[in-house]
Amino acid sequence: MKSSDIALAARLADAAGAAIRPLFRGDCNEETKDDHTAVTEADRAAEAAMRAIIEAELPDDGIIGEEYGTRNEGAGRQWVLDPIDGTQSFVAGRPIFGTLIALMQDGWPVLGVIDQPILGERWVGVVGQGTTLNGKPATTRRCRSLEGARVATTSPHAFAEEEVDAYLRVVAKAYPKHPFPVYGGDCYNYGLLASGHLDIVIESGLKLHDYAALVPIVEGASGQMSDWQGNPLDADSDGSVLALGEPARLEEVLEALGGG
Amino acid sequence: MKSSDIALAARLADAAGAAIRPLFRGDCNEETKDDHTAVTEADRAAEAAMRAIIEAELPDDGIIGEEYGTRNEGAGRQWVLDPIDGTQSFVAGRPIFGTLIALMQDGWPVLGVIDQPILGERWVGVVGQGTTLNGKPATTRRCRSLEGARVATTSPHAFAEEEVDAYLRVVAKAYPKHPFPVYGGDCYNYGLLASGHLDIVIESGLKLHDYAALVPIVEGASGQMSDWQGNPLDADSDGSVLALGEPARLEEVLEALGGG
Repeated sequence: MKSSDIALAARLADAAGAAIRPLFRGDCNEETKDDHTAVTEADRAAEAAMRAIIEAELPDDGIIGEEYGTRNEGAGRQWVLDPIDGTQSFVAGRPIFGTLIALMQDGWPVLGVIDQPILGERWVGVVGQGTTLNGKPATTRRCRSLEGARVATTSPHAFAEEEVDAYLRVVAKAYPKHPFPVYGGDCYNYGLLASGHLDIVIESGLKLHDYAALVPIVEGASGQMSDWQGNPLDADSDGSVLALGEPARLEEVLEALGGG
Repeated sequence: MKSSDIALAARLADAAGAAIRPLFRGDCNEETKDDHTAVTEADRAAEAAMRAIIEAELPDDGIIGEEYGTRNEGAGRQWVLDPIDGTQSFVAGRPIFGTLIALMQDGWPVLGVIDQPILGERWVGVVGQGTTLNGKPATTRRCRSLEGARVATTSPHAFAEEEVDAYLRVVAKAYPKHPFPVYGGDCYNYGLLASGHLDIVIESGLKLHDYAALVPIVEGASGQMSDWQGNPLDADSDGSVLALGEPARLEEVLEALGGG
């Protein structure tokens, strides 16, 4: 990984944050897109600011952005951008959304950033290097049994009906007495997992721009990411996403998801 | 309301925050209580710090605390304390929990504080005065129809089965195309509602220490709080809680909850 790519990713996050901060807790002017998700002026301004930098400095690189689509399709290097992951949280005034930036090389995410511009928290993950939070090493916590694990997901409505049951089986194993998983949080949950505060994040229906940046961050912090069958996440994944702070728990979680 | 009571509430919040901040994102040592909810060293230290101040300065006042129980039961003035509302969020490293402080006079909450010690955000509500966030006026936003309202609740697991259906009827009216309510957040959601970022918070199973402080804050910001039948919240409420930024929407929400 070239240090200039890491520096560029940081400048992209700076630019997105500068676009987002003045609009936080203002009049959001949210609109509903065709896929029923929300978009605001801040999403558009932040993605436009990031694209302008990439287009000016690395015009041959590809871009896959949530709001403005694809540029240079098929390029070996592709920047995957989600200007605000957690637009519902942003709109509600909760500072637990994030800007997601990934660099994919030949279809694999090799660099990821989660940036929370209100709190000034930035996780950076680079393949082959350790993950950092604001420049300091971030490491997942060891989790010795599924019982007692801290589980998070953004919204129960994101699961299809059969997926709800699979998710609830994991929750029941983690919290045998009463279910207390953490809800809400979007990408911020994966940062907290990378820093050792959560053990498992389970989601589905995610798109490439939702998960590409998370992989180098979680794995560079000694965690593991996969789909619900245990396959690594790439551009063709089915949108089911599992993040574990402790890779040794993978089999048990997959078994619970599968009905075992 | 005596200004000395308002000043005391602020000092209680300061003391709780000073106890909580050093333990945030540390080793939480969480334990599960008999009611299956979590408690940490920070909950206990924050409540102890607040109780010590009240006992020293106002020894005849009553105290109802989540962790250390009741003192001077039956006193006309009672301080209701929840040192960390949102312990699951605290444990997960999310700065959207809060310290709740209420003063009840003859069974009615007349003063309320929501304090978020990591972000440095404090909502204060006093009966007969306007609500403030960090000293500046906080006001709910007008919400002209249930469709398009921003709805929040902490966890779907907090509802009994028939309550889930009632809650989902409100969600379906607010989001007719796809349900995007905000999850997680505990007391912090009520602060965001008081500041005009959320329209409706719906919860159940709350205890007095969870809701007493919220009432003066939401109502002093031009909102309304009630149980799911529309009754004002007092010490004998059933734990169902509804907060509306726009009181004019109350009948529609009650109708949807009731199956109308």
